[in-house]
Amino acid sequence: MTDNVQLLGISNAIVDVLAHVDHELIEKIGVVPGSMNLIDERRAHEIYEMMGPATEMSGGSVANTIAGFANLGGRASYIGRVRDDQLGEIFNHDMRSLGIDVRLQPAPDGAPTARSHVMITEDGQRTMNTYLGACTELGVADIRAETFGKPKAVLIEGYVWDIAEGPALARKAMELAANTRTTVALSLSDSFCVERHRESFAEAVRDGVQIVIADEDEINVLMGTDNFDDTLEAIRDFDNLFVMTRSDKGSVIIRPGEQHVQEATPVEKVIDTTGAGDAYCAGFLYGWVHDKSLAECARAGTLCATAVIQQVGARIEKGVLD
Amino acid sequence: MTDNVQLLGISNAIVDVLAHVDHELIEKIGVVPGSMNLIDERRAHEIYEMMGPATEMSGGSVANTIAGFANLGGRASYIGRVRDDQLGEIFNHDMRSLGIDVRLQPAPDGAPTARSHVMITEDGQRTMNTYLGACTELGVADIRAETFGKPKAVLIEGYVWDIAEGPALARKAMELAANTRTTVALSLSDSFCVERHRESFAEAVRDGVQIVIADEDEINVLMGTDNFDDTLEAIRDFDNLFVMTRSDKGSVIIRPGEQHVQEATPVEKVIDTTGAGDAYCAGFLYGWVHDKSLAECARAGTLCATAVIQQVGARIEKGVLD
Repeated sequence: MTDNVQLLGISNAIVDVLAHVDHELIEKIGVVPGSMNLIDERRAHEIYEMMGPATEMSGGSVANTIAGFANLGGRASYIGRVRDDQLGEIFNHDMRSLGIDVRLQPAPDGAPTARSHVMITEDGQRTMNTYLGACTELGVADIRAETFGKPKAVLIEGYVWDIAEGPALARKAMELAANTRTTVALSLSDSFCVERHRESFAEAVRDGVQIVIADEDEINVLMGTDNFDDTLEAIRDFDNLFVMTRSDKGSVIIRPGEQHVQEATPVEKVIDTTGAGDAYCAGFLYGWVHDKSLAECARAGTLCATAVIQQVGARIEKGVLD
Repeated sequence: MTDNVQLLGISNAIVDVLAHVDHELIEKIGVVPGSMNLIDERRAHEIYEMMGPATEMSGGSVANTIAGFANLGGRASYIGRVRDDQLGEIFNHDMRSLGIDVRLQPAPDGAPTARSHVMITEDGQRTMNTYLGACTELGVADIRAETFGKPKAVLIEGYVWDIAEGPALARKAMELAANTRTTVALSLSDSFCVERHRESFAEAVRDGVQIVIADEDEINVLMGTDNFDDTLEAIRDFDNLFVMTRSDKGSVIIRPGEQHVQEATPVEKVIDTTGAGDAYCAGFLYGWVHDKSLAECARAGTLCATAVIQQVGARIEKGVLD
């Protein structure tokens, strides 16, 4: 099979259920404000019952990046598992409607489509409780030459390691990528996720992954340091390309013998920081698949992140780089 | 059965699927910009496939009013039919989470929960294509002493006449209301709906309905006039309370021997006019169930409408009248 896909995403396919809540509710539920927690179906129902009226929209970290990449004009494909239920139809519709080649059919059985209960407090902070549902049944068998294709790059998210066959299917993707000369990018998802899977991530970064995409907290945990300076020292031992975002401190791009520091763009008013990292990743990889210099990629990433924090919602709109 | 419900809503229970679209798409679909069209399931799929990424949220005209009424602090109940599917769960969750007593269980069979594909063009206009699904199976049998209760007022929407047993179940509600000394309010929904059911609406207004809630177009169609002055003349023959909204011209409240004209409140920037009429209705009826004067009710309605046009979304938030 040949295709002209520039970027394949492999990630958890999730519908966000967003509601504004008081801090008291976060306390009552008993989770750390700003954290992402994995919950089972029973607890998902419990938490949903405690939440007020919500709005539903397609989400998921790398899925947001792929949607953004497609909105920039990139040719994208996607592997993620949904059930053949209404939320699964919504998720796949939203991806396909951007021209993304959705590679898996909705599953006819198993757990329902994943949802993340996103609780937004007055300070704009988001606390997430995610029921992975159908995502947990994504398996090695879903990553085949036919579904993988021959993309220029594949982006896998760290959260994939949270599902039973996750590490194995990520390994399978890296094997296929080696055959098709596809660049493998790994997004580290969140620092708790890195803590959960540090050894396995480190092994993948040493063997199979070419581009590591992370924010400051995530890369520090991966490198086992407690500050960014020590991290910069530690990554000298690696021959990967590291793309590291630091919120208002901008971003740092490093590969052996090369380093770029990209300033953040000051904005008048931050509306919603959700998806800033995912948007940066979309812009960076859009530049990257077009063989732009690292400095140009970093600028494209910054443009996308700057756009997304000035809007409500995590997915960038068309025309951000025009 | 006794209850202390102040307002019962009977209406189509609909989840909105909202997307921004170009004018070309409206043309391609072949509907009148700004109109509400009823479609079947096949066409719903066709239209959905043509739409871009969407956001889902609970909607429905009178359902929005009931949600707003509850958010103002009112005690509300609701009769509307959803399937036991994910969209049905979302709709009922959003109502219940506001403290609304949802009177019907989700249906275990039949058509799926209704959705309205809401296409928003750059000028902020909304064109709706609604698949009524489970709503069409709401029946006379659902309107019983136990589900009706003894509310102070019941609000029925004109759109209910679009479903097979709609006129009969509305009549049943009026009969129960007569027994429980419940005031019957009818919201005329939209002017095309009034055209579809003019005779039946006129009959209900003459016998069974005490309060008629309408915008200028709707009341003109009901009265068979082509201007508001002739309408004011025509409604002298009725002994109902007419609550008529006129966008930036404010609202006019008339009952035999009494007339109030309420100015609209100028706003700096209109964000989204969706739900202005439903919000007005929520505020007006909130005043009404608290035995306020017509002038006070009109002011409360105006406050709610003014709030809703300055936000995105059709349902008013808590605290609008505080």
